[in-house]
Formats: sequence, structure tokens, C-alpha cells
Amino acid sequence: MAGIADVARSAGVSKSTASRALTGSGYVSDETRARVRAAASALGYVPTMWAVSLATGRTNTVGVMVPSLDRWFFASVVEGIQSALLTDGYDLVLCCAPPGSDSRRRMFAHSLARKRFDGLIAVGVEPDETEREQLAAFARPIVSVGHDGGAMSISIDDRAAARIATEHLLGLGHTDVVILGGDPDGRRTSVGDGERLLGYRSAMTDAGLGAAARHIPCEVSLPGGYGAAVEMLADRRTRPSALVGVCDEVAVGAMIAARRLGVRVPEHLSVVGIDDHSYADMFALTTLQQRPDEQGRTAARLLLDMLAGEVAPPRHLLEAPRLVVRNSTAAVSDAASAIVGASRRRT
Amino acid sequence: MAGIADVARSAGVSKSTASRALTGSGYVSDETRARVRAAASALGYVPTMWAVSLATGRTNTVGVMVPSLDRWFFASVVEGIQSALLTDGYDLVLCCAPPGSDSRRRMFAHSLARKRFDGLIAVGVEPDETEREQLAAFARPIVSVGHDGGAMSISIDDRAAARIATEHLLGLGHTDVVILGGDPDGRRTSVGDGERLLGYRSAMTDAGLGAAARHIPCEVSLPGGYGAAVEMLADRRTRPSALVGVCDEVAVGAMIAARRLGVRVPEHLSVVGIDDHSYADMFALTTLQQRPDEQGRTAARLLLDMLAGEVAPPRHLLEAPRLVVRNSTAAVSDAASAIVGASRRRT
Repeated sequence: MAGIADVARSAGVSKSTASRALTGSGYVSDETRARVRAAASALGYVPTMWAVSLATGRTNTVGVMVPSLDRWFFASVVEGIQSALLTDGYDLVLCCAPPGSDSRRRMFAHSLARKRFDGLIAVGVEPDETEREQLAAFARPIVSVGHDGGAMSISIDDRAAARIATEHLLGLGHTDVVILGGDPDGRRTSVGDGERLLGYRSAMTDAGLGAAARHIPCEVSLPGGYGAAVEMLADRRTRPSALVGVCDEVAVGAMIAARRLGVRVPEHLSVVGIDDHSYADMFALTTLQQRPDEQGRTAARLLLDMLAGEVAPPRHLLEAPRLVVRNSTAAVSDAASAIVGASRRRT
Repeated sequence: MAGIADVARSAGVSKSTASRALTGSGYVSDETRARVRAAASALGYVPTMWAVSLATGRTNTVGVMVPSLDRWFFASVVEGIQSALLTDGYDLVLCCAPPGSDSRRRMFAHSLARKRFDGLIAVGVEPDETEREQLAAFARPIVSVGHDGGAMSISIDDRAAARIATEHLLGLGHTDVVILGGDPDGRRTSVGDGERLLGYRSAMTDAGLGAAARHIPCEVSLPGGYGAAVEMLADRRTRPSALVGVCDEVAVGAMIAARRLGVRVPEHLSVVGIDDHSYADMFALTTLQQRPDEQGRTAARLLLDMLAGEVAPPRHLLEAPRLVVRNSTAAVSDAASAIVGASRRRT
């Protein structure tokens, strides 16, 4: 195969000029650039970067698909992936688009089909039927973060997290414990949040409180938790003594609502979240900790191993959640019982 | 130049098998793949993607540098860039690393030097001396979002935003107005936040209140604003009647601190932010609106124009901030004066 020296000789320029003309770095006149490119083309010369790609079939890039960046969890996972890929000299091609969007269809139809990356990390993607086929056609290594799809995936043990959160409240003597967040019928609830609802229900059932289990639906975000909690807490008849937020953002929203209404946390209301969001500490929120940046790093390392030819058996890695007790939970108090007691819906 | 048909013929396989072997899509035995690659190499065949890159000197990717993703502003800018690039079929290579980190050094030394992208969008990068030289050596189009460096940049008019915020409070009759956020000596304060401090000071000075201007330093984040505000508001001697948050995250942190201390907003304390963050509406925060997603889209379109050969004159596009009045600001009340009055530091 022709080298840069051959191209330079054929075009009648120096090696450094030939290199500048082909890589686009530094000044070269249009006429010289055209002459060098013609020589390169005639000789079948391939600049190093593409030569490497051609020889190995590799692009040295990894695609990362994510529905949104303006959420603590997704942003932290992507930061973790980035740091692991940088260490190995891989570029991260970002594909950020919400489900159902034109951008998302374009990503699946074009970016995946063009195979511009060696492997893919799908973060919270939860593909539909068509997307599942497109992922299969991609035919390169895929690792998912969150539940789904991929043969290889990483997530927190969502069911255990909600179970531990609920048991913490039950252990403190609470019996009127609700879970806040997600859809009324669960159809648009993410698989992970669905698992959390199941974990809550199983803890309530095992404690003989299955009939008292209550799910308060709301958008899974801080404003979503705030709105639903204002409504629930403002009415003494629906006010529980404790709540589990389906994630910290929802739990923090509920705490802000409680403060606004003068409902004291934890004296009158105990609150547990799931995540250990960057705001959890400020709100002294008791929560189940997961480390999304670590999940991102692990996903990247798994993918790099697969790209290096290490064949790992399909598996779903579960990060064990850790209970971090702060100041938002307390033993059920007579005060709380007194407030709720008289008008409790279920006795 | 040889085509895929020549490669297939030379390797003794079908065109589709040759294509699968070279692109890595679909099943091909190792032996066949090796034979096809050898034939491609001997014939100087370049698969389409790289052939296009070779012919045009283009990679069809744009690099995006950003210090962090776990901040509303950065996440929103990157989402805006992504949506504009997807429309034009460009890939987004993400380079996310905080200033001073190893990742950041690696990004500048390797990713930029390898010129793996056609152009660069630098979001809130504020390069140091070395990085400035590395950017110059990149020698391809660069657009920045935020103040800095690049010949072509986009940002909100930070100074005007803080000026309008301060004037809104002065117009309501407040005279004891502080600004919250940033470093004590301004050395690590971002250029944009520095501009906001200047806007505040000029409004105070023009109102004859230059001597009363007070800057309360804190980390520019929600927990940062919360911590500094708890301290400031808990002490009647330092409690102002109004405050400007250097951004909404700081302002919201201050509002949460006020609620915790029983200082009523806006009755006892007026608060204005800058940004119109996704939480601003929930907190009924009066603020100066900027649209980071729109800034991201504009940056991407500018860069694509430059890549298409449209030579634009160097310029700094300023988004005009828009005052959104919600419920966190009110005319200075006798109540507020009474609280602050007796122990006011400056009279």
C-alpha cells in the first residue's frame, strides 16, 4: 500500500505538505490540496486513522444512547462511561433522544444502521419491538444500564431497594406507608420503577399490610413529587405517616411540599427516597444509595472487554442498594398518629 | 479505485459476503473475513464510510466539550446541540471532563490532536493558556457557548440579566439587596458569573447604593445557595430584604433555606434568579430567562454553516434575557423593614 512519501513524490510536494493537505490541519492552498488528494486517490493511499480502521474493522468509538441528559441519573451514568472510555482512548458518540421522538427514530434507523461505532451502551433505553430488531441487526456488542433488552446489563436491585426502604419505615412503627411516583396504570412507568413498586408491595404484604398499600401516581421528577404531595398532604384524610419516593427527586419534591404546608419531617411525616441523588444530603434525606457513575464505568469496562474479544456469559449485574439513614425518618410518633388518626381511611 | 465487486471477485465470495466481512455486520467465518480483508488491502479498496472521509477530509462528527453534565445548563445545551446535529446527520462526540482533571488534559492532548472531528463546540470551557494553544493548533471551526476564547460564541447577556434582576428589586422599593454566589475573590468564578456580579454592582451604583452592595460568596449550586443562605438569613443583622441569586440553582437553595427558617418569601424576603431553570416554576421564582437548548441549537447550526464553507465574521451572539415575574418578589413591606430595621448594618 502506498505511503505518505509516495503521495508527496507523486504530487511534487514535501511530506509535511502532503500530510497537511490530507488531514486538513494547517495551511495548504486549494490547488495543492486538490493535487495531493488526486495523487492519494490514484495511489490508493489511506491516511493513518482510516488505515487503522480499515485494518481492524474498528472505529474506536462507542455509541451511548440515553433518553435525556437533564436528569441526575442519566448525566451521572454518562459521566462514568466517559471517564472509562477516555482512559482507553475510545471516543464517545452521544445519541440523546427521548422515546417516541423523531430524533430517536433517526438514531435507530441511521446511527445504528451506519455502524459508526464498535459497540453500544444503552442507558435507560427500554426499546420497543422495532427498536429491538434494529438493535439485533446492529450485531455488535451491547451493554445496557437499567433493565432491558441487552444480554449484558447493569442496574441497581430496584426491587430490593424499595423493599428495604419500606421495611425501614415499618420497623419504625409506621403502618400507613404510601409509595409516590409513576403512572396510575403503570403503562408508561419504567421497568426499574415498576420493580420498585413491586418491592414496596411485597414488603407491605409480608407485614400483613397488603390491603393498606397505596400507590400515589405522579410524574417521576422533583416537580412531579411536589405537586402530588401538596395534594395528598393538604388533606388530613389522605395524609400518611410515612412515604417512600420512587426516587429521590420525587421524595425531595414531597419534602418541599411538606415544608410548605407546615407538615414537619420527620416528626409528622417520615420520607425515604431511592438513589442518593446529589441533593439528598442537603435535605437530610434517608435513602437507598446507588452509584450511577460507577454503573457507567462498569458498563464501559464490560463493553471494552467484549471488544477485546473476551467472551463473557450473558448476565444482569445488580448493584446492591445501601441504606443511608439521615434525618427524614423517625419512629412513628403520637403526634403523627393524632393528626392522622381520627380521619384515617383504613383502620 | 477498486470497488466492492472487485474485492468479492478476488476473494472468491459474493458481494454481500465481502461487504459483511468488511463492515463487521452479520456472520462471516474468520477464515473468509481474513481472505476478504487481504483482497481489499491488496486492491486498495476503501469501504464507503472511509472512502467518503478520504474524499472530503471529513469525519462527519462534531466534538462537544463540556465540564460536567450533571447541571441543568450544560445538559440542556448538549441536548440542543444533539438535536440540531442529528437533523444534519452529524455524530456528536462527547468530551466531558471538569477543569484541571486528567480526563480534561487527555481530551485536549489526544482527542483534539487526533482531529477526530470536523469541528468543535466548547460549552463553558474557559481554556487556560496551554489549552488555548491546543485549540489554535486544532485549526478547524470552533464555536463556544458561554464566554470565551472562540472567535464565534453564544451566551446570554449575563451583565444585563443581573442588572435587570437588581433593578426589578430596586423598583419594588428594596434598598438592602445582596447578590449570592461565586468565589470571595472571584478567581474561580466563571466569566459569566463574573459578568453577573458586575451587572448587579452597576445597578446598585447607578441607584446610589454602591456602598450598600454586598456579595455573599458560595458554591454555584443549589446546596451551595442553601448553605450560605441559612447562615445569612439566620442572623437578623445580616438578613437583607431582597437577594439576587447568581443563578436559579443558588436562588432556589436560598428559598429552601428561607422556608426552613420561617422567613416568608416574598413577604419577608424577595428572591430573583437568573436562568429559568426547570425548577423555577415549581418554586414560583421570579427570574431572567435564558434558553440553553436554543443556544445549543444555534451553536450547532453556526458550526454546520462554517463546515459548509460559509465564512461568517467573528462575533459574540448575546441572547437577551427576559424577566419572568412569578411569586418570589414583592414590594418591600413594613414587616420586612421592621425585621431588618433595628439591626441593619448600614443606615
